[in-house]
Amino acid sequence: MRKPKVVVLGAGYGGIMTTVNLQKKLGVSEADITLVNKNDYHYETTWLHEVSAGTLHHDRSRVPVKNLINTSKVNFVQDTVVDVKTEEKRVILENSELEYDYLVVALGYESETFGIKGLKEHAFSIANINSARLIREHIDYVFATYNNEVEKRDELLTIVVGGAGFTGIELVGELANRVPQLCKEFDIPREKVRVICVEAAPTALPGFDPELVEYAVTQLERKGVEFKIGTAIKEATEEGIIVAKDDQVEEIKAATVIWAAGVRGSYLIEKAGFENMRGRVKVDPQLRAPGLDNVFIVGDCSLMINPETERPYPPTAQIAMQQGETCAHNLAVLVRGQGEMQEFKPDLKGTVCSLGHDDAIGVVFGRKLFGSSASFMKKVVDNRALYLQGGAGLVMKKGKFNFF
Amino acid sequence: MRKPKVVVLGAGYGGIMTTVNLQKKLGVSEADITLVNKNDYHYETTWLHEVSAGTLHHDRSRVPVKNLINTSKVNFVQDTVVDVKTEEKRVILENSELEYDYLVVALGYESETFGIKGLKEHAFSIANINSARLIREHIDYVFATYNNEVEKRDELLTIVVGGAGFTGIELVGELANRVPQLCKEFDIPREKVRVICVEAAPTALPGFDPELVEYAVTQLERKGVEFKIGTAIKEATEEGIIVAKDDQVEEIKAATVIWAAGVRGSYLIEKAGFENMRGRVKVDPQLRAPGLDNVFIVGDCSLMINPETERPYPPTAQIAMQQGETCAHNLAVLVRGQGEMQEFKPDLKGTVCSLGHDDAIGVVFGRKLFGSSASFMKKVVDNRALYLQGGAGLVMKKGKFNFF
Repeated sequence: MRKPKVVVLGAGYGGIMTTVNLQKKLGVSEADITLVNKNDYHYETTWLHEVSAGTLHHDRSRVPVKNLINTSKVNFVQDTVVDVKTEEKRVILENSELEYDYLVVALGYESETFGIKGLKEHAFSIANINSARLIREHIDYVFATYNNEVEKRDELLTIVVGGAGFTGIELVGELANRVPQLCKEFDIPREKVRVICVEAAPTALPGFDPELVEYAVTQLERKGVEFKIGTAIKEATEEGIIVAKDDQVEEIKAATVIWAAGVRGSYLIEKAGFENMRGRVKVDPQLRAPGLDNVFIVGDCSLMINPETERPYPPTAQIAMQQGETCAHNLAVLVRGQGEMQEFKPDLKGTVCSLGHDDAIGVVFGRKLFGSSASFMKKVVDNRALYLQGGAGLVMKKGKFNFF
Repeated sequence: MRKPKVVVLGAGYGGIMTTVNLQKKLGVSEADITLVNKNDYHYETTWLHEVSAGTLHHDRSRVPVKNLINTSKVNFVQDTVVDVKTEEKRVILENSELEYDYLVVALGYESETFGIKGLKEHAFSIANINSARLIREHIDYVFATYNNEVEKRDELLTIVVGGAGFTGIELVGELANRVPQLCKEFDIPREKVRVICVEAAPTALPGFDPELVEYAVTQLERKGVEFKIGTAIKEATEEGIIVAKDDQVEEIKAATVIWAAGVRGSYLIEKAGFENMRGRVKVDPQLRAPGLDNVFIVGDCSLMINPETERPYPPTAQIAMQQGETCAHNLAVLVRGQGEMQEFKPDLKGTVCSLGHDDAIGVVFGRKLFGSSASFMKKVVDNRALYLQGGAGLVMKKGKFNFF
């Protein structure tokens, strides 16, 4: 009897959790499982703001795929997905093609610039390991340039972060910790450096508890971060950005602009012809694409409505990982032709937003947390994610234990 | 009685050795000694190729001036020299002016591009701590960029070093050691990286023993360095360089071009009106500027003819440091109005050229050295320089002990 072919696209949170759980549930004789990923490593996307700021080395935030999967059960193909042909049950890769009976699309997110002029050309975004360490190296380079010029250009030392959402806030928190190190490394007076966070919404961290938001903003301002709230980025240029608040237009010269205000699902979702909103597919309760019983979509390419708020769940690692577990269960049911598929229900344990390695805010199990207890919890969250992906061994290798 | 004012300009090898010896010879009541330097640190110029390549952190190659001088005897002014008015016995600094009775000009070297088109705009040079760490950060940045581009541009990974003289060879030696680290750091296949050394003369290391030169070139080629000997750089552009060998013109695309083929004395020498050749003043045997009994010039701004070869001594740290000792002696004689001034005679102990941390070539006390024994001797030379500047304490702090 021919074994069903299961293909998982992407080794991010959703893809890796699907694969790790699937290899536990299914025996070698039950299915051919193939995992496809562009790189030979998985990375912790939620840690990339630290890599970008230069406070965590990128090797600390990634792990070889082969350390996570059981290679006697899962076939790993390192290649880039070019297209998905659902009618032909085929995936086109850059160097080969794969047929499947069951497909898991876990292709992650991309930066969404909402058509703001110049952002794509002149702003960095935190998309992956490569782009995160490029930001780190760019900042190092412009800081190193400063003292080489006879006429000092202070804009070399200005870093603009677009967006005071979760990613933007976590990034400026790390940058605030990084700046003193950069000043020491490159002999730069601290007062010359500016870290500016620009947010179009009327508040930082929209949706967060206002008391926590106030704490976060105050703490970051104390560390030297400037906030421009209710201020929209109109354009990014070679020199910096142009912002507007009410009718006031201002140019901010900055050698480093990082866009951290929007993500969308992979452009491959559109290319493959799935019905979607910004690269996200509204999946059924079993996590399948509409009308396709054999195609699961998990992580940032999937869209589910939270019935309580009637708005989509945010694209978080927490949800992607939980989806991976449900997806693996449902796949096992389909492959075996027995059992009951599960409906996906996120188990939201809470959210913790880091403000640098020693500070954070959050709501966990309905309780508000500030400062070192929130920071402790953030590291627990990060280590728990590692545990789910790779067990205690991975936690020991890459875990965060600088609790105090 | 008014104390004579001694002003030393520059805290490089020549200036710091003059000051360190002077503060030993003269009591506080005998003279007012002032040392002027742009930075609050002295750096080991002969180590800057390591800083540039990223194999040695710049903090390892510099030391606060105040750790070297006795601040109860020497007044340290951190400022930039703008001009020297020898007729008025005044030095113009950016933020103040100083009068002197005796002056020591030890303003060091600058890069000399011999009018080659585009070099100033498009090539880096190893001039000081700032420019050396800029090279390091630039290389990191272009290597980090490589994997972010859809169409890979291999020229991002090409490093051209102009000149196979002492500095050029030492630089490619460090780069050869650095490249594997860079490849690991930025996930780059080693075979994509090129380090090319271009030299217009018919041999690498002109003036060195041919057997040693052959050893050096062979060893560096084994580490992946490409040599283009007898090849002149005609132009540097935004894309790389244009070279010519005989009548063959070739373009080499390279994101990093480092000019290491020429130095000259400080442009301040010309500005101050000293008779000079490329910023170097032919000093008398007591190291004084022609016609100026109270102005000493030491280090790379001085020019002395080697009677054996009838050519100028090369601008080396060894000679600058020895000049500092003689200069301090002669100053003490003048200040006291007693004793006998010395004529400067370089005591050339030899030359060792590093080929990376584990290899070198050299001639020491007339004996040829290769490989690890030369590399050992190179570190002895480096540590001895530290000892002369700052005693055993400085050797312990900054010395090179990675002998094997």
